[in-house]
Amino acid sequence: MPQLRLALAQVNPCVGDLSGNSRLVLEWCRRAADANADVVLLPEMALTGYPVEDLALRESFSTASRRALDALPGALADAGLGELLVVVGYLDADEVGPRNAAAIIHRGAVVDRYYKHHLPNYGVFDEFRYFHAGDDLPVIRYRGVDLGVVICEDIWQDGGPVAAYSEIGLDLMLCLNGSPYERAKDDVRGELVAARAREAGAPIAYVNLVGGQDELVFDGDSMVVDAAGVVLARAPQFVDHLLVLDLDLPGDRSPSDARPAGFEVRRTTIEGAPAVERAPCAGPCIAEPLSDEAEVWQALVTGLGDYVRKNGFRSVILGLSGGIDSAVVATLAVDALGADAVYGVSMPSKYSSEHSRHDADDLAERTGLHYRVEPITDMVAAFVEQLQLSGLAEENVQARCRGMALMSLSNRDGHLVLATGNKSELAVGYSTIYGDAVGGFAPIKDVPKTLVWRLARWRNEQAAKNGETPPIPPSSIEKPPSAELRPGQLDSDSLPDYTLLDDVLDDYVESDRGFADLVRAGFDPVVIENIVRMVDRAEYKRRQYPPGTKISLKAFGRDRRLPITNSWRERRP
Amino acid sequence: MPQLRLALAQVNPCVGDLSGNSRLVLEWCRRAADANADVVLLPEMALTGYPVEDLALRESFSTASRRALDALPGALADAGLGELLVVVGYLDADEVGPRNAAAIIHRGAVVDRYYKHHLPNYGVFDEFRYFHAGDDLPVIRYRGVDLGVVICEDIWQDGGPVAAYSEIGLDLMLCLNGSPYERAKDDVRGELVAARAREAGAPIAYVNLVGGQDELVFDGDSMVVDAAGVVLARAPQFVDHLLVLDLDLPGDRSPSDARPAGFEVRRTTIEGAPAVERAPCAGPCIAEPLSDEAEVWQALVTGLGDYVRKNGFRSVILGLSGGIDSAVVATLAVDALGADAVYGVSMPSKYSSEHSRHDADDLAERTGLHYRVEPITDMVAAFVEQLQLSGLAEENVQARCRGMALMSLSNRDGHLVLATGNKSELAVGYSTIYGDAVGGFAPIKDVPKTLVWRLARWRNEQAAKNGETPPIPPSSIEKPPSAELRPGQLDSDSLPDYTLLDDVLDDYVESDRGFADLVRAGFDPVVIENIVRMVDRAEYKRRQYPPGTKISLKAFGRDRRLPITNSWRERRP
Repeated sequence: MPQLRLALAQVNPCVGDLSGNSRLVLEWCRRAADANADVVLLPEMALTGYPVEDLALRESFSTASRRALDALPGALADAGLGELLVVVGYLDADEVGPRNAAAIIHRGAVVDRYYKHHLPNYGVFDEFRYFHAGDDLPVIRYRGVDLGVVICEDIWQDGGPVAAYSEIGLDLMLCLNGSPYERAKDDVRGELVAARAREAGAPIAYVNLVGGQDELVFDGDSMVVDAAGVVLARAPQFVDHLLVLDLDLPGDRSPSDARPAGFEVRRTTIEGAPAVERAPCAGPCIAEPLSDEAEVWQALVTGLGDYVRKNGFRSVILGLSGGIDSAVVATLAVDALGADAVYGVSMPSKYSSEHSRHDADDLAERTGLHYRVEPITDMVAAFVEQLQLSGLAEENVQARCRGMALMSLSNRDGHLVLATGNKSELAVGYSTIYGDAVGGFAPIKDVPKTLVWRLARWRNEQAAKNGETPPIPPSSIEKPPSAELRPGQLDSDSLPDYTLLDDVLDDYVESDRGFADLVRAGFDPVVIENIVRMVDRAEYKRRQYPPGTKISLKAFGRDRRLPITNSWRERRP
Repeated sequence: MPQLRLALAQVNPCVGDLSGNSRLVLEWCRRAADANADVVLLPEMALTGYPVEDLALRESFSTASRRALDALPGALADAGLGELLVVVGYLDADEVGPRNAAAIIHRGAVVDRYYKHHLPNYGVFDEFRYFHAGDDLPVIRYRGVDLGVVICEDIWQDGGPVAAYSEIGLDLMLCLNGSPYERAKDDVRGELVAARAREAGAPIAYVNLVGGQDELVFDGDSMVVDAAGVVLARAPQFVDHLLVLDLDLPGDRSPSDARPAGFEVRRTTIEGAPAVERAPCAGPCIAEPLSDEAEVWQALVTGLGDYVRKNGFRSVILGLSGGIDSAVVATLAVDALGADAVYGVSMPSKYSSEHSRHDADDLAERTGLHYRVEPITDMVAAFVEQLQLSGLAEENVQARCRGMALMSLSNRDGHLVLATGNKSELAVGYSTIYGDAVGGFAPIKDVPKTLVWRLARWRNEQAAKNGETPPIPPSSIEKPPSAELRPGQLDSDSLPDYTLLDDVLDDYVESDRGFADLVRAGFDPVVIENIVRMVDRAEYKRRQYPPGTKISLKAFGRDRRLPITNSWRERRP
């Protein structure tokens, strides 16, 4: 029974950086060779980064991607890696148009190519807009083993190339992925890969991207399952990883006559070098699943860190109000970038309480970030006096002076501004546009307020367990939330209790449940009407909001594009 | 030979306003009946407005749309309009999913439905994301005449339902559209409709939406062409219009045996009331085409006016710098809303020149808008002194104090803030985020600077021709452009000549031409490199920009979604 040593390279490319990504591919092929692997898989679009969005439609970019791919086989051979069978995702373009493609490379040549069949166009995906679908079904015989290739969505749809391959019969399915993180998606993904392996009657090697790219974050979670759906190896989430294991595969099957309708079957045989003597692979990694809080925290840290680094920033700046949101964002930034790259500014107004100032000081001390205090009293007074502002206009001017001060310091010193708004307040429009919404990245824009508290408690507990100072002031966690834009103001003056609010938002926003359905679920119609009205009116503000890391089905961003003018409102039926 | 009197209702619905749009449909059916029409056509998605975007995916909305449609036949019959054959676009949803649909209504019942076949998913369109495609081919025999129905994109693709209908044979094709305006699109559209009529061997009645909806504007341009492609009637652009004409049609054809593959042919016969004696229709309208400047100006006025009205605002506020951009935006606002709904604010800093202040005063006097002067000296000083700002940070703080002042007045008095940036400066990032980019609507975000000047001259000439005061100060048109954020600053310090810049932008942005291609076209490589670098770096700012009216292929908005982090740059090859 032939044995293959597989290496799954769970890597973090950067969209558009073709030369950097080419170096990354070579480096991880080198690592795979060092581990004596026969085959190395790299994820979907590893050479271009994912998602390339409109770059797919620029001919000069698809040409550059194709050139970078064409240069790989020679570079691999020159580096003494020609014997390795390399499967890597890239952007191709033929006479039909752009293609989400995989190349199979061996001994200095591209042996075959595969074009993704199923182009997802829901949620965060827009692939139908950018790519044309393929219909080919390559079968690569390598050392007597029949390999098939599919890309990501191809295994999420019934009746696609997996079904077709199962008619033909394969020894091993290689699946390249750019599968973005969502909360608890690893469970769904594991079950799906197992089910497809059973359908195909063959093991599946599933390799995924890792790292943040704009508002998406990829969690890795690469794995190999056997033909019965049992997990043989699984990489840890949110870190670069080379997952290596030995697979004994049937091989030498007699070619099937099956010709699945609508598919272009293509068989290629590659002469591999004879198998060499090598020590057996160390027991393959099967990473323990993370807790819900740990998973979300790592997703946010990864998304924030990569956004800053991939955009060429070295430091971030944010306002510290003493409240829970800014404390959590500051801690995420310190975890992602180190305290020395994080600048916090306390910007008290005449309505800021003594305890808020103290909580901001306390946070700075606990985390060790750079800290300064810049009262906004004079700036606010200049606007209020000249324009005779009061009420809401005066409240907003305070938030806006803070936003302007942060942008000024960003312009002066080169930091990226972080916005600290959470998903609950964004959903109901409880924020000031050009005020607290100012920033180039909003790390917790997809985190509901109740989860912000939960994460804060979890992060402090982790620190305590490790004998470190808990970074978040307990007072910031325990005190009732307030925007402090007028005397004695509390969030609860304007909003329902956050537990209730988050419950309704989860149903109304994430699950698209209608008014009648929410009433049937037992919510008070008056409460729902109030929340639904706020959400429907907050659409415009959301459009202006900078991206953050997506951790759930629906962040308020690209995948929720309600029209700005929208006279239809959810009403009691 | 049977004669039908057609009425094409070129109407302006509002997205989401199901009850308002239902009233609109009834009102225009009444007008069609008053004109003794037999058949009235309303545009694509007239009942829901277009584009509904994510509302299509809300089950409560598609149910509400379906209910509104179900109520129409009864309401029409109750209003004595049951004999009219009504064809109207709406959002349907069946077990497969949401549908972009048309209903054929007669005598109190929905006689048949059509689901759009081709779902565009390029440029401003995202229909593949929202709808499922139909495959039915209804043929309605009404007074002996065979009618077919198609929707918009169905006629833009070869080999679709038009080809299928041509196999079957029709007397008249009814085409419902939500076809957004682009510069000179009327020429393309006219040729397309003529070509499809010749292909179908039948006249086409083409009805389109009119009015602004978020960043889209619909120009109407409804028309009827005969089977040879000759235009028989054509509605004026940018206005509500009922286009009525009499058509003599062959009729009484023997049903064809053709069964085009992949289509579901369905034949329905409707008993119409016997033809009544009526005076012949007045000579049908064939609107004169507008000049390029007039067409763009009307598109911008329509887009701005409808954005303000459909969002429930009654007035707008903007900063008047004395420059050409704010002068043109102010004039557009006055044309759209009347001078009494427009509030201009001059906000001089210590760098503002005397002539700029004078030009702002002059504009206010010429247009009659509400005008005030609010120097920003004290506000700027508060920031500059406390945060020790200089250079770019000091320049930006001026623009931001102006933005904040406008937002404060908006909060205080309820006006919508207009941003005055043009497409050229947006493309190269020559604007201040949270500064001059502040606003809920950016009327000229899709107008290149050279076109801004051309429009200004044209508008003044039109005024002079009509014996009115030209609204735009000649000095604002003639003087060299400057941001006046430091002493003696001119746009030409930072940017190439605008004629050259707009030429390159047109090639690089609108036509997606690459670096090598631009060099071959004769541009100086150094100039291109500079412009391309600025454009590629300006992506992030564009994401933050509010929508404006789309007048060309690519506004910087939804249909240009370059990733924010994008290490790939156009370089000299």
